[in-house]
Amino acid sequence: MRLALGIEYDGTDFSGWQRLSHGETVQGALERALSFVAAQPVEVTCAGRTDAGVHGRCQVVHFDTEVQRDPRSWVLGGCSNLPSSVAVLWAQPVDQAFHARFSARSRRYRYRILNRQVRGALEARYVTWERLPLDAARMHDAAQVLMGEHDFSAFRAISCQAAHARREVRAVSVRREDEQVIIEIEANAFLHHMVRNIVGSLLPIGRGEQPVSWMGELLAGRSREVAGPTALASGLTFIGPRYEAHWGLPAEVSQ
Amino acid sequence: MRLALGIEYDGTDFSGWQRLSHGETVQGALERALSFVAAQPVEVTCAGRTDAGVHGRCQVVHFDTEVQRDPRSWVLGGCSNLPSSVAVLWAQPVDQAFHARFSARSRRYRYRILNRQVRGALEARYVTWERLPLDAARMHDAAQVLMGEHDFSAFRAISCQAAHARREVRAVSVRREDEQVIIEIEANAFLHHMVRNIVGSLLPIGRGEQPVSWMGELLAGRSREVAGPTALASGLTFIGPRYEAHWGLPAEVSQ
Repeated sequence: MRLALGIEYDGTDFSGWQRLSHGETVQGALERALSFVAAQPVEVTCAGRTDAGVHGRCQVVHFDTEVQRDPRSWVLGGCSNLPSSVAVLWAQPVDQAFHARFSARSRRYRYRILNRQVRGALEARYVTWERLPLDAARMHDAAQVLMGEHDFSAFRAISCQAAHARREVRAVSVRREDEQVIIEIEANAFLHHMVRNIVGSLLPIGRGEQPVSWMGELLAGRSREVAGPTALASGLTFIGPRYEAHWGLPAEVSQ
Repeated sequence: MRLALGIEYDGTDFSGWQRLSHGETVQGALERALSFVAAQPVEVTCAGRTDAGVHGRCQVVHFDTEVQRDPRSWVLGGCSNLPSSVAVLWAQPVDQAFHARFSARSRRYRYRILNRQVRGALEARYVTWERLPLDAARMHDAAQVLMGEHDFSAFRAISCQAAHARREVRAVSVRREDEQVIIEIEANAFLHHMVRNIVGSLLPIGRGEQPVSWMGELLAGRSREVAGPTALASGLTFIGPRYEAHWGLPAEVSQ
């Protein structure tokens, strides 16, 4: 039987998603908890791996098991065997053809910037601090050039192992909420560090150091060396993937 | 010279506000940082002490010093000598008659409840988890009986050292925001554990276990033994005090 699970996590104290031989990872903690519930080894596949310090609002994983458990048991048993920084939100049997990564039609990320003169103390693990005033409307305008299918080489980490750099951005917005500037972006898929590199290039535009047109120049230039630095991991949250409605998954991950 | 400072803190890892001979407190950390900036001992007086695990959005303190420093130096020097869980938001010279505690005309608190079937992982240190569905509108109606001046003995901790239990509640609201139920309350002053005890009594009303009228019965009965249990500290944030406009403090703490 194949099961899909929704996973929430605070990535601050993890060495990223992917299981490592050394260092605590979200996948490692989750597999240990689920293996305990199953009383046999469980290996999960996720919708999108996240880097060290990046958070997950509704990561989706799937795994196969012959163990018969009520979906509720995977949720409760998972939660009670996980550290407080990881929770199983839901569990649901899915068709054997479902694949957390390959069935995902899009992924959504949110980046939060605390934009004020002094650093934060409350909720500091969920934001990046920018001291200089940001013009969110200007950043929003600049980001619109990313919409559609492009070669995103300018925003691709050197370590990125994807076969090609073409991705389709389906929604991107920048808005201010009191002291925070919030960037949301949805694409069919993302390159390694793509969101953080886009944010790193929107920041000089928001500070007025680069023109709104700079984003389009960077995109067209396809050179990682010209674009802004990679923004810190702490501000980034993987909101989650979206799947076609016919898989019957919860509304938050359905199109 | 008397200075007023706005202080933000994540109370999770502190043994409360008040300086102790053992255990790390917000006051202890702040005084160490300010003493370092002043190069002489600094002792602060706050608007409202908070318990272990309770957070502060804009606590206000005052202290006297003969050291001449630009207000900006107290902010930057304070921040750079504080742990990441405490920040100095602003610093301002004030009239010698100003007193962080006695000049405050009111205090505001916010209590956040994560209301869903599974516990949280993201932002878990800023909420209390309630698994059973809460009717926020019902809780809001019940809370309105607290408005005005009353004897709040029903919601007063046994350890409370106040001379009397009369306090004036000036605003109280309960609302739902997605998965969270948010309670906000403003009063001239609060008894020890008063907000957490009020929340602990609103919870059974929200779950439908007690009628809306129960809150009025508890208030009239003045007995701590009948009211609900003290809600957890993690959901509570001291938003801050308010002072009369003539002190010239920042808008967030002015009436």
